[in-house]
Amino acid sequence: MLSSVAPSLLSADAVREAAERIRPLARRTPVMTSLSVDSRAGSQVFFKCENLQRGGAFKIRGAANLVLSIPPADLGRGVVAFSSGNHAQATAIAAQHVGAAATIVMPEDAPRSKMEATRDRGARIVTYNRFTDDREAIAAGVLAETKGTLVPPFDHPLIIAGQGTAALELLAEAPLLDALVVCIGGGGLIAGSATIAKAVKPGIRVFGVEPELGNDTWQSFRKGEHVVIPPPDTIADGLRSPSPGKLTFPIIQSLVEDIVLVTEDEIRATVRLLLERMKLLVEPSGAVAAAAVLFGKIPQGLGRVGVIISGGNVDIEFLSTC
Amino acid sequence: MLSSVAPSLLSADAVREAAERIRPLARRTPVMTSLSVDSRAGSQVFFKCENLQRGGAFKIRGAANLVLSIPPADLGRGVVAFSSGNHAQATAIAAQHVGAAATIVMPEDAPRSKMEATRDRGARIVTYNRFTDDREAIAAGVLAETKGTLVPPFDHPLIIAGQGTAALELLAEAPLLDALVVCIGGGGLIAGSATIAKAVKPGIRVFGVEPELGNDTWQSFRKGEHVVIPPPDTIADGLRSPSPGKLTFPIIQSLVEDIVLVTEDEIRATVRLLLERMKLLVEPSGAVAAAAVLFGKIPQGLGRVGVIISGGNVDIEFLSTC
Repeated sequence: MLSSVAPSLLSADAVREAAERIRPLARRTPVMTSLSVDSRAGSQVFFKCENLQRGGAFKIRGAANLVLSIPPADLGRGVVAFSSGNHAQATAIAAQHVGAAATIVMPEDAPRSKMEATRDRGARIVTYNRFTDDREAIAAGVLAETKGTLVPPFDHPLIIAGQGTAALELLAEAPLLDALVVCIGGGGLIAGSATIAKAVKPGIRVFGVEPELGNDTWQSFRKGEHVVIPPPDTIADGLRSPSPGKLTFPIIQSLVEDIVLVTEDEIRATVRLLLERMKLLVEPSGAVAAAAVLFGKIPQGLGRVGVIISGGNVDIEFLSTC
Repeated sequence: MLSSVAPSLLSADAVREAAERIRPLARRTPVMTSLSVDSRAGSQVFFKCENLQRGGAFKIRGAANLVLSIPPADLGRGVVAFSSGNHAQATAIAAQHVGAAATIVMPEDAPRSKMEATRDRGARIVTYNRFTDDREAIAAGVLAETKGTLVPPFDHPLIIAGQGTAALELLAEAPLLDALVVCIGGGGLIAGSATIAKAVKPGIRVFGVEPELGNDTWQSFRKGEHVVIPPPDTIADGLRSPSPGKLTFPIIQSLVEDIVLVTEDEIRATVRLLLERMKLLVEPSGAVAAAAVLFGKIPQGLGRVGVIISGGNVDIEFLSTC
């Protein structure tokens, strides 16, 4: 599936413009290394620590890029987002920054910490049942009522471009990366990251990672078409998308070499290892890419590997299960 | 007690030389900020994250500075250290780097994670009972046998100078600090940090923090002489020194404005808050300075406050008590 000459579906310049636009809102997160991780992984691993990002996840990059692009005349009608948590918080932060009201449609079983943090940002929360309700229909209802702007979680060019800024920063600090490993939920982070990474360093190899229990993009990638799975029940609550995005999937097909899977136990062990060895609190979704590197799911001997730790919003009580 | 004109007992240049010397071994750790911490503290707080340091604590700075100063002819006889944990690990790392054997005298109730990490570095561990044995006598016995070099935990000019490099880096990244808040065990970190901070920015105010249950330096500071307390039983296991150092105490008396105390509950709450809000795993000792800022123990309205998070080596099981 690797094709570095395929016409890009998103321009690298869109990512560079996003980097400029989101500067007032997004942090330049540190890139960290660990000798004990390296010796275990058999590679030199560079972690882009988006768990240390504002709002605790990379999501502020995309949300800020979109919200800061809304025409001033439209801001008064507010913004609407549907999200399991991190995108909710990010949208609330970006909306608060521009003075727009935010309505967030969240699953009623979203982690407590994510729901509280979103409410703390002044957002109105509408809950739904992840297994029986249609969140997009609920968001559409709110939009019909408010006439506000939808901030989709991944399938929008400005969201994808914003997420790509994480890889742009990582490559600025670790320019000699041979490979990039990124988790896949709806695919916004990997689509934006692959786009800019291939532009900056055409030979870089990009790998996607999903939980075995949420393998919609893995299935779609192998079948060559969108596959829809039942609502996944993985502990990686940020990666419970039932299907890759209409915009993100073609980019993934074009630029990603392979998608690999990790088990729930491997995710738990990685959360524990990152906490014990690197002193970083990483949420299950945020540990998925690292798990692929630590448990030998990507090709050996890659050399210098960049891994995006996508977020750190997890209830502390969860740690006792790791 | 503030006296910025007192003759310095340690030169700022010794700290600058240490910064050069330890470069191959110590990491330049990130300085982090958090809006939610700022709003709670009423100050702009800059955290120097030594929990992300090699070996999980600032201790590698001092240990590396001393070990890298040992004449090559003496390295073959190895090094000896006594420590509750972080200095043990740091000495083992530095010894491994120069190819010297390390013997570490540790309390038998030191955290499991610290003991394992020290053993992982190839050090020989000799345990003792913290309440009944004399660790210095045990270390002296090992030294008599091996004729090696002692790497004391704090009371040595090279150790103090090495620890001061943490503040040197913090001030390079946050040059407008109005105050510096540092935990006190034996006093090496604060003595080195105060020395360089006052040299770089003479008007800076320096505050020391101890647990109420381990207030030896607080008592000594108030009485104007060395006070020895019974072995403290605070959860801040890195700060269980019974008395300040002979070298560190006069520096503290000369350069530190005040020493304040925090409770065990305040330390626990701060460990939890730093984990939840900043995604950083911090050990109880490492959270003591932050606790003073978060719980209003230092003067209000200080402006920009630098806080050294001294370490992150804590058994994950401890978190369930926070």
